[in-house]
Amino acid sequence: MKLVTVKKSDEVILGALNEDHIVDLEYNGTMVDLLHSGDFGLDAARNAAETGSKTMGLDEVTFLPPVVRPGKVIALGRNYAAHAAEGGAAPPDYPMLFHKTHTSLIGHNQPIVIPPVTKKVDYEAELAVIIGKTCFQVSEDEALNYVAGYACANDVSARDLQRQTSQFTAGKMLDTFGPLGPSLVTADEINDVQNLNISLELNGETLQSSNTSYMIFNVAFTISFVSQICTLEPGDVILTGTPEGVGYPRTPPIFLKPGDSVTVHVEKVGSLTNSVV
Amino acid sequence: MKLVTVKKSDEVILGALNEDHIVDLEYNGTMVDLLHSGDFGLDAARNAAETGSKTMGLDEVTFLPPVVRPGKVIALGRNYAAHAAEGGAAPPDYPMLFHKTHTSLIGHNQPIVIPPVTKKVDYEAELAVIIGKTCFQVSEDEALNYVAGYACANDVSARDLQRQTSQFTAGKMLDTFGPLGPSLVTADEINDVQNLNISLELNGETLQSSNTSYMIFNVAFTISFVSQICTLEPGDVILTGTPEGVGYPRTPPIFLKPGDSVTVHVEKVGSLTNSVV
Repeated sequence: MKLVTVKKSDEVILGALNEDHIVDLEYNGTMVDLLHSGDFGLDAARNAAETGSKTMGLDEVTFLPPVVRPGKVIALGRNYAAHAAEGGAAPPDYPMLFHKTHTSLIGHNQPIVIPPVTKKVDYEAELAVIIGKTCFQVSEDEALNYVAGYACANDVSARDLQRQTSQFTAGKMLDTFGPLGPSLVTADEINDVQNLNISLELNGETLQSSNTSYMIFNVAFTISFVSQICTLEPGDVILTGTPEGVGYPRTPPIFLKPGDSVTVHVEKVGSLTNSVV
Repeated sequence: MKLVTVKKSDEVILGALNEDHIVDLEYNGTMVDLLHSGDFGLDAARNAAETGSKTMGLDEVTFLPPVVRPGKVIALGRNYAAHAAEGGAAPPDYPMLFHKTHTSLIGHNQPIVIPPVTKKVDYEAELAVIIGKTCFQVSEDEALNYVAGYACANDVSARDLQRQTSQFTAGKMLDTFGPLGPSLVTADEINDVQNLNISLELNGETLQSSNTSYMIFNVAFTISFVSQICTLEPGDVILTGTPEGVGYPRTPPIFLKPGDSVTVHVEKVGSLTNSVV
């Protein structure tokens, strides 16, 4: 099942995404609320997705991030060795955690807006994990049981702000710098999360192409690691790092500019496209 | 006015804190909701605080953080030169931003719980700023108009996790590592936010003692700086950094242990006490 949050004439609607239409789940709440209701909620959503009669065309709606206003958006730095190397850094010994913010999240087809404060905006294709059950101090073996599903993400990064101090987050938390979606693909649709092709196209040219098998810290380890530190809650988002091929280390560097179109593809999870303005 | 969020027999209540009692504002919503209603909400709260007849003794309630589940908790590293120096670091050229999380926040008298994952838990007395109005790209001159009020904070830090990678946040976002309160003191009660004594006592011994006049980046500059990067929303919390006197650089180092009691004092803002378990 592919769960979406969409807006239609100012109404925010939870739906199930199909090839050419969306079924309105007629659920009165947010995705975070739905996930808080656990398997009960997901089963009800599955039933509504199959039997619901209220449908919308894809062009009738605006896609929002599948999860609006999650409690946390945790991201990993340098989680693919070849990406660490292209930036001249060693692979980290521990997951390198930082945060994006709920105000950075946008949906499929919503524009990435570059504010005056940055001149060096880069792209980063990532697999996003969306937590489905409250989770604290879980083992790596159990960790995937706490996942609701997956989405494509673009960890858009202002490299100039990111490098002002040792802490990355100033370059990561800009409004609209967190494209997420198009949908939350429920975990049952992903047989092996550590064997998914992941790529990024800028204006039709492929600039990143890798596979989630190259993650240094895999999804289960990462969830277990973070859950030793803090409680993960339904709707929390974890961005699992980007592979090699980002813009800033290239000769000449590539930075996003108004008019660009950038698409993240993750095998079985979908394609997330955003324009730049 | 000193606004509090408290729990009484499982009911979460917004109140106004007085010397020896709390007036129930009889407001049906969260502090974030109240702040979203702007001056209208604060005026209504002020009226309710003066005329409300439903009161509670301080020992009848559990203090929660004045703002529960804010959208963002942004913190500044090394914002007092003497604290940067005691850690062997230069003062930063730009505000060094990182995040804590809403799951880290606890109220006055709630316990700081040390989980197995850390052995080096330190204290950091800080002034917290709570945003009252949505704010994007505001100037330093205008910035304080967007502040709802202030609170005491303790940026409890797991130094071992903080130093696993270059990114601080793994040591900052542990559950219960964000004492905040006891109340949100509205901005009209603070004549000059850059001239407040700030101190910390551990088991009755004063270990930090400074003044907000020593901040490298003052509150107005910090709000303006952050607002160039992202939208600040009502209820968002900014921790403005800690002065010198933290535990880890001492000989021998001081780390928090079960049985400790730690109190942050900020002049005119209050005293925030938490035990350690």
